[in-house]
Order: sequence, then structure tokens, then C-alpha cells
Amino acid sequence: MSTTAPATPVRDLADPGTPFAVVDVHRARRNIARLAQRADRLGVTLRPHVKTAKSLDVAALLHDGTPCPVTVSTLAEAEAFADAGYTDITYAVGIDPHKLPRVIALLRRGVTLRVLLDSTEQATSVADAAREAGIAVPAQIEIDCDGHRGGLRPDAPGLVGIGRILHEAGCLDGVLTHAGESYFAHTAEEQRLAAKNERDAAVAAADTLRAAGLPVHIVSVGSTPTAHAADDLTGVTELRAGNYVFFDLVMAGLGVCDLDDLALSVVVTVIGHRPEYGWIITDGGWMAMSRDRGTSAQPQDQGYGLVADLTGRLIPGLVMTGASQEHGTLSARDGALLPDLPVGTRLRILPNHACATAAQHHGYHVVDGGRPDGPTPAIQGVWNRVSGW
Amino acid sequence: MSTTAPATPVRDLADPGTPFAVVDVHRARRNIARLAQRADRLGVTLRPHVKTAKSLDVAALLHDGTPCPVTVSTLAEAEAFADAGYTDITYAVGIDPHKLPRVIALLRRGVTLRVLLDSTEQATSVADAAREAGIAVPAQIEIDCDGHRGGLRPDAPGLVGIGRILHEAGCLDGVLTHAGESYFAHTAEEQRLAAKNERDAAVAAADTLRAAGLPVHIVSVGSTPTAHAADDLTGVTELRAGNYVFFDLVMAGLGVCDLDDLALSVVVTVIGHRPEYGWIITDGGWMAMSRDRGTSAQPQDQGYGLVADLTGRLIPGLVMTGASQEHGTLSARDGALLPDLPVGTRLRILPNHACATAAQHHGYHVVDGGRPDGPTPAIQGVWNRVSGW
Repeated sequence: MSTTAPATPVRDLADPGTPFAVVDVHRARRNIARLAQRADRLGVTLRPHVKTAKSLDVAALLHDGTPCPVTVSTLAEAEAFADAGYTDITYAVGIDPHKLPRVIALLRRGVTLRVLLDSTEQATSVADAAREAGIAVPAQIEIDCDGHRGGLRPDAPGLVGIGRILHEAGCLDGVLTHAGESYFAHTAEEQRLAAKNERDAAVAAADTLRAAGLPVHIVSVGSTPTAHAADDLTGVTELRAGNYVFFDLVMAGLGVCDLDDLALSVVVTVIGHRPEYGWIITDGGWMAMSRDRGTSAQPQDQGYGLVADLTGRLIPGLVMTGASQEHGTLSARDGALLPDLPVGTRLRILPNHACATAAQHHGYHVVDGGRPDGPTPAIQGVWNRVSGW
Repeated sequence: MSTTAPATPVRDLADPGTPFAVVDVHRARRNIARLAQRADRLGVTLRPHVKTAKSLDVAALLHDGTPCPVTVSTLAEAEAFADAGYTDITYAVGIDPHKLPRVIALLRRGVTLRVLLDSTEQATSVADAAREAGIAVPAQIEIDCDGHRGGLRPDAPGLVGIGRILHEAGCLDGVLTHAGESYFAHTAEEQRLAAKNERDAAVAAADTLRAAGLPVHIVSVGSTPTAHAADDLTGVTELRAGNYVFFDLVMAGLGVCDLDDLALSVVVTVIGHRPEYGWIITDGGWMAMSRDRGTSAQPQDQGYGLVADLTGRLIPGLVMTGASQEHGTLSARDGALLPDLPVGTRLRILPNHACATAAQHHGYHVVDGGRPDGPTPAIQGVWNRVSGW
């Protein structure tokens, strides 16, 4: 779980062994600035989810190199970020009580690590563990705003009881919800309504707890689509989003970003041609891209990804239509001609789902792609990822 | 890219932080013995593909701990296996000429590393590189037997010309084909025919080359379904297969194995319940299972996986039906009742596609599950994977 950049010589994108992941730091910075400005305007704290990049180097872009509030998806991320000086961390997956010793170890180091839960049995485990350890374990109650996965509905009868168990052990910290269904909201208006629904659910749950005399410090909402669509977050204290740093074809398909906002791509090499099938074969299969086919549920299915040249310019009509473990298949669509790309040609594939594609790689080769018609950008460094659980 | 087992204390399956991958070494050994006996009976060399497990420890099961012929999908695998004393390696992905320096470095170490190609431009690159380096680069010509991805049809006009370019540089080693379509052959008879077609294509290509006066040493065929279905491999010299060591739900759906042959599973923990939706929520999402949904194309869609208890006994009717990054959703089907599995319960999920699920993990916790109604098996060790390219 190395988290510092190794001393790799600066090389050209055409040099290293393909496939490998590339981050365009210019685009990432622009995406980060866009949401930071929105959060400021909405009057809420931004708590980026670091599960997409899982990289201390990418996280350093979030707040000018200094630790900021973050959300994590694993305790491995929490521990890596704590080691790097982050002290305000929310672990946004329902807590398995077996994991509480690792949580308490981080709390004892002075890290404010919040856990998430939605049941009496979890609340009791957290309260018992806190009493036994003699330390408050800040816990947020997960609220289900749209039937996506875990959480209590804001009007669930058990909500106040769970709040009371936590409060009596000094552990009640707030409520948290995630508009999972917003990834299927295909218009700006649907996304705005998903954001309103997400806010309303979290605020309603907080109001119910407060009406019962329980303190609610944090009212947390967020998903990349709703974070970009919310127009009123009254009653909300913080906004979470993760994918937005890289964006991807699913987000572009939803209209949350443009194709030229996508900051993550995978460099592959042409290794063959099957003109009789209209195929170009590359050395980037699902091991490099993941099996994620998020755009298959969208009006425009983008296969395993769109194809760009090494400078980042999209090749019109060329799509990665097939993948085996270490083979990618590119095909032309919409009447486009299959371009002449000899064996050895390097290409960049834009992924469906940045979180899943990034997870197939140990780290990122970093370029500054600020000049769209310039030369192939130089690799400025290599950034590592945190992995495992 | 560590490839030796770290000194991890032996622990119970219920102990480590979930999710994590488990290999049942009893089942793996049985699967290995089954195909080894078939290859013996068919009179061919078995050259296992190590791309599924990517583990020197798993590979040590193949031939009583001594190096045997292997197939690899990346040069990272080739280098790791060469470091461990394997000297007979086929790299079964079409060669990118940029990668030839790494190939030649292995050849210079005394490793017989074969490359694969299907074009004049690749053959010329290989021949030129061999002459320049003063070393033969053994190359196999990829034959397409079923329109799956790369390769030349056995009757392709360019076949002999490519063979000649290689032969003149001392590099022609043989032909290789892979029945990719056999993963969609849903009856034993279709699989037998796919195996016959695979053999016939490879042998026809070899005959064409020999008729032109070119030497063909190796005639290589294989896929897990055809390796288990072939009844006559006359003219073939070697058989390749990889998935068979672990097997998975796709292979079980094809009837190539039984469910109790599956050697790879992922241990997850219950973290919540949504009785109103009929859901049990776990901490194993697509990060632990991969996004592979291979059984979605089969008559029985197995979701993201079937669910067993920690001893490996399947829980009837329980299926992993949904996945987000770190959340799994389990549901009952076929009228089964949702079992009572409290928060904290550990389960084992059997994957769609072992190659893809294994790739989500750094290594394997090893158990010997030889006693189906015995206690939860002890973890006997941790085996690492090779990763990257």
C-alpha cells in the first residue's frame, strides 16, 4: 500500500509499456474548481469522496496540498489518509462491528473518523465499543432517500431509537444520505429533483431527531450528479461527491460534464487488425478498463470506451466495442470509416466509469493536457493508489 | 510485484477484515488433476494459462512444485515466472513491437519465451529485432478458428508469407489458436464441436505451412471448455487452459464443472437489511467481485454470484443481485425465503468469472475445504498475485 510517488523518470506517453492509466491534471484541477465554487455558493462544506482516485497526490489537488475533510469507502483509505495528516474523515459504508477496533485505533490517534449505520444492532455495537474504549465513536445514521441500497427512510419508526442509543453513548454525529438513483436521472430537471429529494430526506430525518431532543451536527448529502444540480441546500451542512474529479462517459452521458472534462484515460497499443470484421485489436482489455459498461443503460451506449489519440483528441466514430482479459476490440460506428492505425499505434481510451477503471491500475501517469492541439504531452510523474480493504 | 507469501499468522475465515478472496486448495488440486489426466489421455502437453490465478503458489500445485510449461497474458507474468525458475513460457497476446526489448531480455536469461503474431508487420518487427539482437525470438502465428478476436484464418493468403519471414530469421515456432466462442457453447455437443473446430483450424494452418516447406514445431490449442470437451487432438502438440484451476459460475453454467468444483470465493460481511425490498446488504461490492456478469448471457443468470456460508455450503435461492463499489445486495429467488443473517454474518460469494474477480485482490487466503460438513476451515496461508503489465 505504497502511497508516495516513486522516482520515475519523466517519459513521453508513447514510451512506457501499455496499457497504463493517465490523469490529465489540467482537467482534474478544472473539475475540482468547478465543484468547489458550487459548494461555496451553496454555503456548504465540500467533503470529497476519495474512493475514485484513491490517491494522496490527487487529493492534494483538492485544497492546495493541505488536508481537507474527506469521505472514504474503505478503512484502508482512512488509514492511508490519516497517515498523511487528514484528520476529518467519514467512512461512508455501513459499519461491520468487527471493524470497530480499527476505527477506534484511528480515533485514538486523534483522527475524527465517522462511521455510518442504519440499524439498532449496529448502534448498540458502536455504543458498547465506545463505552468499552472510553472514547466517543462519531456515528451518522444512514438515510435512504431513493431506495438505492442501505439506510432508513426519513420517516422510519426506528430512527429516533437508534439516535437515542448513539446519543446516550456520546456518539450521535448526524445523518447522511446518497442519491444513488441520480445516476439514472437523464435530464437536468430530473437531476435537480433528485438533489431536492436528497436534501429533503436528510433534513427531514435531522428534524425528526432534533424534535426528539437529539443533537444533529452534520447533515450530509451528495452524489456527483446531485452535487452539480442542487440549487438549494438549506439545512444541509456538507456535500459529498467523488467521481467529479475525473468524470467519465456515464457522467458525460448524463450531461453532468462534457467529454473534454474527462481526466482519466488508459493508453493502449494497436496489436492487430481484422478488416473482415471491421476490427482494430489493442492490448487493452477488461483488465485495463474493467468490466464496467455503465453507458449500456444510457441512450448512447459507448461500449467499453471512446477512443482518442495520444494528445487527447477524440477519433470520430471509433468505439471500444469488445474486451477480453488483455485484448480490446475497436470498431467504427455511425458510418465512420475505420481509421488507418498501424500496429504499434498508441491510443487513449476514455472509460465508462472512472472508479472502476482506476481500480484496475496501481497508479496514474500524470500529464498536463492543457494544449488541445499541441504535441503529445510529457509525463510529469507517477501517482500511486491506495488499494485493498 | 511481490510474489512470495508473507508470514501471515494462520487465522479463521471469520477473522480478517472483509472482503477478501479465498482459494479452496482441495478443489483446485482436484480441478488440476482432472485436466492433467485428460491431457495425458489425449497425448498432448498441458501448458496451463496462469492469467487466472497469477500466483506462483497456485502454479506450484500444477506440477508438484516444479516449473512446467506455462502460458501468460502479460510480460509482468512472464518476468515473475522467469524469476521463479520457469523457462518454457508462451505469451499469448499479439506482440506489440515496442515490447520486444523485454522479450529479448528474457530470452537472454535462457527463458524460452514465445511471442504471438498475425501480421506481416509484426513478423518483420520480430525478425528484425532477432537479427539485431543475434538471438532467435520464437514466434507462433495466431490462427483464428471462430471469429473471436485476433488471428489469421487457416486459409488466409498471408499465412505462408508470414511463416517465411519468421523462418528466415530462425523464429518460426508454430501456430496457436483459441476457441473463444466455446464460452458460448451451451451443450456438451457444441463444446465437442468447438474443440474439433479448434483442432482442425490449427492443424490445417500447420499443414499449409509445412506444405510450403516451413517447419512447425508447436501446434497449440485450448480454452477451458474445449480442453474438457476434446476427444481427438491428432496433430496437436499442446493444450492450453487457465480458468479450470478455479472454475466459476460461467463454467458451471456451461456444464464444464459442478458448483462444488468452484475453488475461488470472496468472504463478505452482512452490514444491513432492507426487508421492504427483500435485500440483505454486504460489504462486498464490485470492488471485491468485479463488474463481470458473464452469466447474464446464460439461461440461468446468477447475478453477481451465488452465496455460501463460511464452510462453503450454498444457501439455497440466495443470489448477489446488485453491486455498488463497496456494497453488495443479496436477494432470494425461486420463492426462497430470505434467510435470517444478522449484521456481522460472514458469507462466501462464488463469482461469475474467476479471472476478473481474482484480479480485484492482491492475493488469496488459502483453505482446505475437503470436509463439506465440517467446521469453518482454517486459513493455511496467504498467496500473493502478480499484477500490472
